[in-house]
Amino acid sequence: MATAANSVPHPTIIPGLHNRWHPDIPAFATVKPGQVFKLECIDWTGAQIGNNDSSDDIKDVDLTKIHNLSGPIAVEGAEPGDCLVVDILDVTPFEKMPWGYTGIFELENGGGLFAREFQSKAAKAIWDFHGVYASSRHIPGVRFAGVSHPGLIGTAPSAELLATWTERETGLVEANPGAVPPVALLPVEKGAYVGQDLAEDVRKKIYAEGARTIPGREHGGNCDIKNLSKGSRCYFPVFIKGANLSVGDLHFSQGDMSFCGAIEMAGIITLQTSIIKGGVEKFALKQPIFLPSPVDPLYSAKLVFEGISVDLHGDGKQYDMDATVAYKQAALNCIAYLMKLGYTREQAYLLLSAAPVESHIGAIVDSPNACVTLALPLGIFQNDILPRDEGLTKRDFGQCAIRSDGVV
Amino acid sequence: MATAANSVPHPTIIPGLHNRWHPDIPAFATVKPGQVFKLECIDWTGAQIGNNDSSDDIKDVDLTKIHNLSGPIAVEGAEPGDCLVVDILDVTPFEKMPWGYTGIFELENGGGLFAREFQSKAAKAIWDFHGVYASSRHIPGVRFAGVSHPGLIGTAPSAELLATWTERETGLVEANPGAVPPVALLPVEKGAYVGQDLAEDVRKKIYAEGARTIPGREHGGNCDIKNLSKGSRCYFPVFIKGANLSVGDLHFSQGDMSFCGAIEMAGIITLQTSIIKGGVEKFALKQPIFLPSPVDPLYSAKLVFEGISVDLHGDGKQYDMDATVAYKQAALNCIAYLMKLGYTREQAYLLLSAAPVESHIGAIVDSPNACVTLALPLGIFQNDILPRDEGLTKRDFGQCAIRSDGVV
Amino acid sequence: MATAANSVPHPTIIPGLHNRWHPDIPAFATVKPGQVFKLECIDWTGAQIGNNDSSDDIKDVDLTKIHNLSGPIAVEGAEPGDCLVVDILDVTPFEKMPWGYTGIFELENGGGLFAREFQSKAAKAIWDFHGVYASSRHIPGVRFAGVSHPGLIGTAPSAELLATWTERETGLVEANPGAVPPVALLPVEKGAYVGQDLAEDVRKKIYAEGARTIPGREHGGNCDIKNLSKGSRCYFPVFIKGANLSVGDLHFSQGDMSFCGAIEMAGIITLQTSIIKGGVEKFALKQPIFLPSPVDPLYSAKLVFEGISVDLHGDGKQYDMDATVAYKQAALNCIAYLMKLGYTREQAYLLLSAAPVESHIGAIVDSPNACVTLALPLGIFQNDILPRDEGLTKRDFGQCAIRSDGVV
Amino acid sequence: MATAANSVPHPTIIPGLHNRWHPDIPAFATVKPGQVFKLECIDWTGAQIGNNDSSDDIKDVDLTKIHNLSGPIAVEGAEPGDCLVVDILDVTPFEKMPWGYTGIFELENGGGLFAREFQSKAAKAIWDFHGVYASSRHIPGVRFAGVSHPGLIGTAPSAELLATWTERETGLVEANPGAVPPVALLPVEKGAYVGQDLAEDVRKKIYAEGARTIPGREHGGNCDIKNLSKGSRCYFPVFIKGANLSVGDLHFSQGDMSFCGAIEMAGIITLQTSIIKGGVEKFALKQPIFLPSPVDPLYSAKLVFEGISVDLHGDGKQYDMDATVAYKQAALNCIAYLMKLGYTREQAYLLLSAAPVESHIGAIVDSPNACVTLALPLGIFQNDILPRDEGLTKRDFGQCAIRSDGVV
Repeated sequence: MATAANSVPHPTIIPGLHNRWHPDIPAFATVKPGQVFKLECIDWTGAQIGNNDSSDDIKDVDLTKIHNLSGPIAVEGAEPGDCLVVDILDVTPFEKMPWGYTGIFELENGGGLFAREFQSKAAKAIWDFHGVYASSRHIPGVRFAGVSHPGLIGTAPSAELLATWTERETGLVEANPGAVPPVALLPVEKGAYVGQDLAEDVRKKIYAEGARTIPGREHGGNCDIKNLSKGSRCYFPVFIKGANLSVGDLHFSQGDMSFCGAIEMAGIITLQTSIIKGGVEKFALKQPIFLPSPVDPLYSAKLVFEGISVDLHGDGKQYDMDATVAYKQAALNCIAYLMKLGYTREQAYLLLSAAPVESHIGAIVDSPNACVTLALPLGIFQNDILPRDEGLTKRDFGQCAIRSDGVV
Repeated sequence: MATAANSVPHPTIIPGLHNRWHPDIPAFATVKPGQVFKLECIDWTGAQIGNNDSSDDIKDVDLTKIHNLSGPIAVEGAEPGDCLVVDILDVTPFEKMPWGYTGIFELENGGGLFAREFQSKAAKAIWDFHGVYASSRHIPGVRFAGVSHPGLIGTAPSAELLATWTERETGLVEANPGAVPPVALLPVEKGAYVGQDLAEDVRKKIYAEGARTIPGREHGGNCDIKNLSKGSRCYFPVFIKGANLSVGDLHFSQGDMSFCGAIEMAGIITLQTSIIKGGVEKFALKQPIFLPSPVDPLYSAKLVFEGISVDLHGDGKQYDMDATVAYKQAALNCIAYLMKLGYTREQAYLLLSAAPVESHIGAIVDSPNACVTLALPLGIFQNDILPRDEGLTKRDFGQCAIRSDGVV
Repeated sequence: MATAANSVPHPTIIPGLHNRWHPDIPAFATVKPGQVFKLECIDWTGAQIGNNDSSDDIKDVDLTKIHNLSGPIAVEGAEPGDCLVVDILDVTPFEKMPWGYTGIFELENGGGLFAREFQSKAAKAIWDFHGVYASSRHIPGVRFAGVSHPGLIGTAPSAELLATWTERETGLVEANPGAVPPVALLPVEKGAYVGQDLAEDVRKKIYAEGARTIPGREHGGNCDIKNLSKGSRCYFPVFIKGANLSVGDLHFSQGDMSFCGAIEMAGIITLQTSIIKGGVEKFALKQPIFLPSPVDPLYSAKLVFEGISVDLHGDGKQYDMDATVAYKQAALNCIAYLMKLGYTREQAYLLLSAAPVESHIGAIVDSPNACVTLALPLGIFQNDILPRDEGLTKRDFGQCAIRSDGVV
Repeated sequence: MATAANSVPHPTIIPGLHNRWHPDIPAFATVKPGQVFKLECIDWTGAQIGNNDSSDDIKDVDLTKIHNLSGPIAVEGAEPGDCLVVDILDVTPFEKMPWGYTGIFELENGGGLFAREFQSKAAKAIWDFHGVYASSRHIPGVRFAGVSHPGLIGTAPSAELLATWTERETGLVEANPGAVPPVALLPVEKGAYVGQDLAEDVRKKIYAEGARTIPGREHGGNCDIKNLSKGSRCYFPVFIKGANLSVGDLHFSQGDMSFCGAIEMAGIITLQTSIIKGGVEKFALKQPIFLPSPVDPLYSAKLVFEGISVDLHGDGKQYDMDATVAYKQAALNCIAYLMKLGYTREQAYLLLSAAPVESHIGAIVDSPNACVTLALPLGIFQNDILPRDEGLTKRDFGQCAIRSDGVV
């Protein structure tokens, strides 16, 4: 019989939180290679965003506090130069919080892919989770299976690596004075947090030097790769003794790129680790590599939008082989198509952040135009959206959650 | 009985060639909507590259002559503002030429993704086609199914659109004087060709004004999208009466981005067209959109490499959210891994151009690092290439075809 | 902020159990169309099998008690002739019981696909669930993602339908007197159970007449279809007012056919229903139809075994277009291959029951041999199992759990 | 330059034909392991069926002449007990015959899956090949990508194996006297053919003893497995020196089971072979095993029909775990659904034979009902066929080609 004695659940660690990368943040817990464990994660903002119909919380979000990471978790035996193998075994929302959100952030507070082009004002969509599916009262007419993953996962940097990050990002900021939003976020004490008892000088050092968690870097970090999903195996370089893995920013779903924030959620991640000694050298591991999960929503029928590196701002400007511009063009073309179906620009923008759209690089060798494609899965729409002789059927899908002052 | 009377093959058009885009190039043939037809295509260089073991032909290739396009084909009833629907029904090599090539072009003659980083010298790989598969004596240990497609397909530009192209690309060249390779190739009479009888003034005008075929643009063109493969359906904007479709640069296979040239081949493309009146407005059609083919090689197991927008030249430089740099980093990481397996840098570079690798945009919102992934299908390798505890097995794969003077 | 007020989990119903099909079993709960709800399910045997290393519990299992079904759940508004649409939104093990089992049942107590051929003795494998994956200490060298589903789900029969079942199955039993195992299990009071307060005459009637739950029938039932997994949508005919849906026999994973029992587990299923009035007539709904889930483990590389309808018992006998025999041949061929790799016959038999193998009908028209294939996914094995020139590497995988008396 | 010298096409063998299996049929040609070669194949009937709008040719087809096989091809070095590895590199129709057909055969002449149930009269559909796609004027509203494959491919039997076949099939015929259609077709001189010069006694022996080609057997043969398609690799047991491979019955497309004949075509198959010494013992090779192609049409969205082993003839009869009956039920349920859409029974029957439907075994252990599913890909239909609240839209699709006397 299935008695308590033979039904041992995997242990759940409710870890300390921290929101900076620094080698001196002590490990909160230590695991053995092979051990399966779970980590609770709050959402990236630390529960600043609510399940409601106004985007004021997005407008006013305090981003100095992000990202709220769970960890660090040390792995017994890991040393610099090793490869830390991490099996991401599961990623689920809390049972009592079957919802998440996607937000468009204000140009001056968070930004996002089209922050400048759209002069973005806060907007959001709440997504309800029904088992494997998400749907939203703010974006009717779609439902899709999530490819749940941590937006952010990485090992702790060494002091040397941290110094490198700070130096190069400072250089970029200095080269772009006054940019809005800023081109990079440098270390800042305001908002810094490590949820452990620390000697005051250690805390002070971490808060002063700790790298911000916004970008992905050599250790992984905030890569926002949708395919690092439950079932994937990731190989990280180890920079300090114990590896000190931290994770957070769980996503229920995301496309190939978060325009403005994926479907953000709080929840639980299940992990298992192992170590390959000297793996950095063995695999030429400059940045993480990974094996994607065999479990991935399969929507084979797609409508694909092309984009080239011109005319980002409607001024016809030619860019030089710029995949970012080409990507944005493809996305703008897709947004224009979705608006023909009746979605507002904000709904379309949010949908592309949340749904399992795929973006492939077409070419970056045919000067001067990079070509990028964005593929919209047809199976996520309740109605047929294919191009037909008679044109597209425009429906009324209302609007997503906007600011209480009505500004869009 | 299957008599000649009831066995009517699809008609094959052996079309005129041309290597510039211009509205005044007359249609070589006219087809009716619904008609299935075949077009013969020579390879993009016009048979300048041979099935041999030296890359001298790559080194000396005359690129003013490219791309050799088949067409234009007018479609009855197509008018500006319409959408031309093109079914790419098949793409095959000539039965008598079951081979193709991938080339690395010299920095000063053709370039390519890493032309500057690698200071590229000419190299190449010849691929033998065995039914659905390609393999190469120059890159042992791999075999993969091709996802055959036209690298280049598009409708003719109107005079206005052509003027726009020339203006914006001229602007870019003027902003980057002396760049090697040049940032864009402007109209030039040298090498221009239209394989039809033309009044002298018409020919002169076309040669003087005709847009070069290197980049993809609003009409499609040289987009090098691997998923525009046999079985796909593409929706093009129509800019002039008849649409005047041209096609060429057939590829037996290509990854998500041609680093240096896909598997180039000569062969036959089978097409069918239809027209959606006013489709440009109906679908907000700024650039082509398409439905990918249900027939696509499926290699589900992959090893994925991450890249971020830093350190492209080994100098640790930080770039600002540049997906092109991130893409290159992912590719360099993959090349480093392949070299651990025993491939030379040139072989690895060629392989990534030819095989069905996939590149996805991870994120372009996490300032300052864009994150891009490149996925290598495991099933194309004869041997296991997974990261193992004991490291990777290095084998001797020789070298690809290089210059007769031995310079690499 | 994510307060309790805005975090409403889906309601969980801990339903009554029953183990017979009968129209007079009252609905335990009623749901509205559109409502998302969860049902707790015990494993099919009612926790008779333990997480241990002996198969004695399999040997002695009391099968008159099976299957323990959760329900019935009535759906408001459902009437005979309607179609009940059921979205299977999720299927998960209990968090505190991350394990399941696969059993080989004794010829005289449960049987199974090869019960007669193998003169089966009890054996079993315990599977540990690590997030999306299952692995077993009893079958080393494999790990696979589960395609979790209810083995058994169906609407309640009408009195007329129930009478039809009993009549036709009685006929079959009478035509095969003394068969071991019996060809069908007829209604029997012993072991019958309905976990609700009932008038004694009602209970008596149900116990005397209730159809056994072993086979799938027109209402769905024990179809053991692996693709009726989380994310699928199933259309059931409705036979009585309220439809009275019952579900149980959850599987963490199963191949195309359970040889001997899938990976059986206890857990929770999340459902949502809707009604299509008159759907039976609209869709010619004689038996359920369904839309499979977009979420399905994708192992594209497979080794496929053919089987034809001959020689099931090693006597060379020719069967007449019998797909069951062909299926068994394919499975025997696969088991022989797995034994070359070092697995015991029992391990191989259990593995094929548990892993996501696929079985396709090749042909049933080429008299006298039906041809069936069984595809083994290569990606579930830790080591390469492909046919190589040098043959297969035989490893020592021990043995699965067997009877305490050592009889196999 | 691509000169004739460096453009060597793969050699095409226009082989002798034969329509019986016998070890004494001499090899028509010999190939070396590793050599790529092409074989021309006529359609299985030997061009008895025409591209026209009457099924009289189906009605009157002479089936004693079938199957017209190309070969045998000997492989240098192959000996009994070896494994012959065959790469099926390509399968294409003749360029001048871009069409094929699917036929329903008369109950008394050919039969088919539902010959008895439907009392089949001859009918057919002509399919036009447009590159990778097939569509039919006789079954409007569908188009699908073909998964081209040889319906029939196998090595020659040894004298012993041949004797075994004859003995066991004779036994079956004797046990079912007078069956219409007969349960097996025994050796018969009428119609026998070997297209080579042979000594008269040899020819006589072959014609008298040669096994008919209808069923698949231990050597492969007429297995009608759709996944043995271009790009697959098959491992055959070798029974005589040289292996003597024969192939024919090319299909442009077929579902999981040919109800009545796939899309039959004439064309060319491209092959490459190698030998694994002693492979029969190494791999426990009782029947062929194979690796399916990475190139397979991917239609992920499907509507699945269940079938159980009851009521095949509308009489409610209960069968004992009979997967063939369950398969037929699933097919009948699908046909009923297609008829709600407006297709005739004959069109539906032909469509299921031709399109890439998939049939999986659900369960064959839940006595007494085997459960089989049949999956209809949604992407092959021009219009939405999903079950909707409002029911299905019935369209007028006319009728397929029928007999000139109008009998259906």
